[in-house]
Amino acid sequence: MLAAELAATPIGSEVSLAGWMHRRRQLSGVSFLVLRDRSGLAQVVVKDGGLRAAVAALGEESVVTVHGMLTASPAAPGGLEVVGTRLAPITEPALTPPVQLWRPSPQEGLPTRLDHAAVALRHPRSRASWQLAAASVHGFRTTLESAGFTEIATPKLVGMATESGANVFELDYFGRAAYLAQSPQLYKQMLVGVFERVFEVGPVFRAEPHDTVRHLAQYTSLDVEFGFIDYHHDVIAMFRAVLAGMLRSVRERAADAVELLGVDVPQVPEALPVIHFRDALRRVGAAEDEPDLEPAHERALGAWAKEEHGSDFLVVEGYPMAKRPFYTHPQPDDPRWSNSFDVLFRGLELSTGGQRLHRPADYRAALATNGQSAEAFSAYLEAFDHGMPPHGGFAIGLERWVARLTGAANVREVTLFPRDLHRITP
Amino acid sequence: MLAAELAATPIGSEVSLAGWMHRRRQLSGVSFLVLRDRSGLAQVVVKDGGLRAAVAALGEESVVTVHGMLTASPAAPGGLEVVGTRLAPITEPALTPPVQLWRPSPQEGLPTRLDHAAVALRHPRSRASWQLAAASVHGFRTTLESAGFTEIATPKLVGMATESGANVFELDYFGRAAYLAQSPQLYKQMLVGVFERVFEVGPVFRAEPHDTVRHLAQYTSLDVEFGFIDYHHDVIAMFRAVLAGMLRSVRERAADAVELLGVDVPQVPEALPVIHFRDALRRVGAAEDEPDLEPAHERALGAWAKEEHGSDFLVVEGYPMAKRPFYTHPQPDDPRWSNSFDVLFRGLELSTGGQRLHRPADYRAALATNGQSAEAFSAYLEAFDHGMPPHGGFAIGLERWVARLTGAANVREVTLFPRDLHRITP
Repeated sequence: MLAAELAATPIGSEVSLAGWMHRRRQLSGVSFLVLRDRSGLAQVVVKDGGLRAAVAALGEESVVTVHGMLTASPAAPGGLEVVGTRLAPITEPALTPPVQLWRPSPQEGLPTRLDHAAVALRHPRSRASWQLAAASVHGFRTTLESAGFTEIATPKLVGMATESGANVFELDYFGRAAYLAQSPQLYKQMLVGVFERVFEVGPVFRAEPHDTVRHLAQYTSLDVEFGFIDYHHDVIAMFRAVLAGMLRSVRERAADAVELLGVDVPQVPEALPVIHFRDALRRVGAAEDEPDLEPAHERALGAWAKEEHGSDFLVVEGYPMAKRPFYTHPQPDDPRWSNSFDVLFRGLELSTGGQRLHRPADYRAALATNGQSAEAFSAYLEAFDHGMPPHGGFAIGLERWVARLTGAANVREVTLFPRDLHRITP
Repeated sequence: MLAAELAATPIGSEVSLAGWMHRRRQLSGVSFLVLRDRSGLAQVVVKDGGLRAAVAALGEESVVTVHGMLTASPAAPGGLEVVGTRLAPITEPALTPPVQLWRPSPQEGLPTRLDHAAVALRHPRSRASWQLAAASVHGFRTTLESAGFTEIATPKLVGMATESGANVFELDYFGRAAYLAQSPQLYKQMLVGVFERVFEVGPVFRAEPHDTVRHLAQYTSLDVEFGFIDYHHDVIAMFRAVLAGMLRSVRERAADAVELLGVDVPQVPEALPVIHFRDALRRVGAAEDEPDLEPAHERALGAWAKEEHGSDFLVVEGYPMAKRPFYTHPQPDDPRWSNSFDVLFRGLELSTGGQRLHRPADYRAALATNGQSAEAFSAYLEAFDHGMPPHGGFAIGLERWVARLTGAANVREVTLFPRDLHRITP
C-alpha cells in the first residue's frame, strides 16, 4: 500500500509499505525511520534489536519494504505510525546521498543540487514543485480538450526561417543547416487551418546567451491557437478559462504540494483586468514613446492590479507594433498599436498572446516592412493564400509559471534537469 | 454552431455556420456547397441568383459564414441540408488550392502533399489520421494518470553520452558539442527514483540515414517507466492496460475518424499472448543463433498470434542480451536472454520494453562489457548508487502506431510535417 493510504486504514491493521528510507533517527531504545513513496511519507518506529541494526546498516535512500502494525501516535506526523515487525532491503544498501534529502529545505547550493539532480530531485520540495507543473499541464489540456481543441505535435527541427532569427541553435541536418524551433508559432497557425483549435505542450529551444534566473536553453511551452475570433479579447477570454482550469487542477491534484510549499494559489477574476500599453506607460510615469515595459514598470503594474482590481493577473494590451513579430495583427483604429497582449502574474510576464494577421497580402506587407523574404516563408504563407480565419493564441512557459506560483527565485529550482549557457548535464 | 450539431437541431431552425468552402457544385438551377469546420462537413444548397454568384466567386477553401434554414433532404449526407439565405466571406477569396481536398481520397502523390502540407493536411482523411493520434495520446495519458503516474518533461539537448551513440544529431551548444536526445530513457529511469511512476509524450530525434517508409528524423515517443516491479511481466501488464486505454479513447473520441478511414479497431485480450524469442525463432524456422527477427519472421508471428490466440498483438520476450542496450536486465535463469520484449501489432514492431538493471554494480559491469565508460554516465549512475527499485518500462512510437491502425503504407502519411533525410520543410 501507499503511505498516503494509511490515513484511511483502521488502526491495528497489518500494513506493508515499499519505498525509500528517507530519514533515520536512532534514539537510545528505539529507532525511527521515515519511508518515502510516490504518495508521501510514513513514520515507522522500530524497537526490535535486530531490526534496529538493519535500519542502521541500510542508510538513507536505501529501497526497502516494511511490514508492521498501524498505530495511533499523537506525536507522529498525521498522528499515525507503523510499528515495524519486518524490514528488508529490495536492493543493496544505498551509498550516502550527495545531498541531505531529509532536511525540511535543501541546504546545499543550487549548483550542487543541479549537479546531483538524479538524487536532489527526490527532495520533497523539489518533487512538489514538479507536481505543481504536472497538475498545471493536466488542467491546461483538459480545459482545451473540453473546448474542442486538438492536441498537435509540431517539428522541432526546422529549415524554414524562424520567427526572430536570433538566439537559435543550429545543427547539421544530413549535410544541411537546420535549426531548433524557438516556438511552434508558425506550425500552430498552419494547423488552425486544419483543426481550427489546436494546442501543444512541448519543448522549445533558445540559445539564450545571458545567464539570468529566468532564462533556459530549453523550456516547456504551453501553446494555444484558434480560429474564428473577432479580435484579441476572445483570446484573452480563452486564456482566462485555461488559467482557471490550470489552477483548479493544481488545487485538486496537487493539494499536498500546495500545502508543503505554502503556495498562495491565486483566484482568477471572472474577467481579467486589461490595461492598454499607452495607459500603462502613463500609470508608471514612463515616457510615452517607450517601446516596452521595464521590470520595475511590470512590478508597479502588478501592484496596481492587485490593489485596484484585487487581481494577481493583469493583461497589458496594445503593445507597439514596432516591437512585436511580423504576424501580429495591428489595432484596427490605430496601427501604431497591436492587438497583442502580455499577461503579468504578480508583476512578472507570464504569457504573450494576441490576434495574428490572417490576410495573405497583410503577411507579405509585414514581411517586407520587416526586411524579411516572403520566399523563406512560402510554405507558411500557403495557409493564408488558401483561406485562414481571423485567429489568435498565446503561450505560457511552464517552468516560469511554476516559479511564479512557488515564489522560486530561480526558474532552475523548478525545472527537471535545466539547460543553460553553462549546463548540459546531467 | 458546428456542422456536427445540425443532427441534433430541429428541422426548420435558422442556423449559422462558419468554416471553409470544402466543395462547390454548380448545377443549372441550383448550387451546392459543402462547408467544412472542425466538427465535420455540412451540405448547403443555394438557389438565389446573387448567392449563387457569390459561391462561384469565392472558390474552394474560402472562409465563409453561412446562414440558412435546416431542412430534411434524403439525398444529402446525413439526410440534412441547409438552405442558404446569406453567405459572406470572412476574408478575401482563397486562391485555388494546390491539392484537391474535396476528392474522397487524395489524388496527388505523397511528395506533393508534403510540400503543400499547410493545405494538404486539411483533407478529411489526413485530419482523421491525426485525430486518431490525438485520441490515442489522450487515452495513454488518462490511463497512466489514473494509475498514479507523473507526467515529466526531460531534456532534448544532452551532453551525456546517449544510449547507442549512432544516428545522433550533433549541434553547437554555446561552443560545446551537444546532441539531440534519441529517447528519454536515461532521464525517465532517474525520475523513477523521484516519482516512482513516470510518463512522457515528446519528440525524439534520430539521424536516420536510410530512406524507408517507417523511419523519421523526429517522431513522438510515448514513454513509460515505473518502479517496484517483480519482473518484466509487470511491464507487459501495464503495456496492456495502456493499449486498452488508447483504443478505448480512439473508439470514444475519434469515432468519426474511425468510420471515415474504415479503421478495424483491434480488441485487446485480457492478457497479451507472450512467446519467448527462442521459441519464436523455432516457430518461424529460423536458425537458433539468429540475434533478431526479420520482417518476414515478424509477419509470420503476427499471423500465428491472430490464428492461435485471436490477438492482433503478440509479445516476444527474451531477446538476446547481445542485441539489447546496456541497461537491459538479463533473464535470471539464463543470462544469454533478457527480461526485455518487443510487441508486434499485426506483425510489425510497435513497442520495445522490459525490465532494466537496478543494481549499481550491474550497471558498471554492463558498461564495461559494452566497452563504454562509466565516467560518461556518472550523473545517471548516481541514481542507482543511491537507491533504485527494480523497474521497467516501454515506449511506443505514436506515428508508427497510427500508421498500423490505419494501414498507411508510409508513416509520413499520418505525420504532421514529417522530417526525414530529404525533408526539413515546411
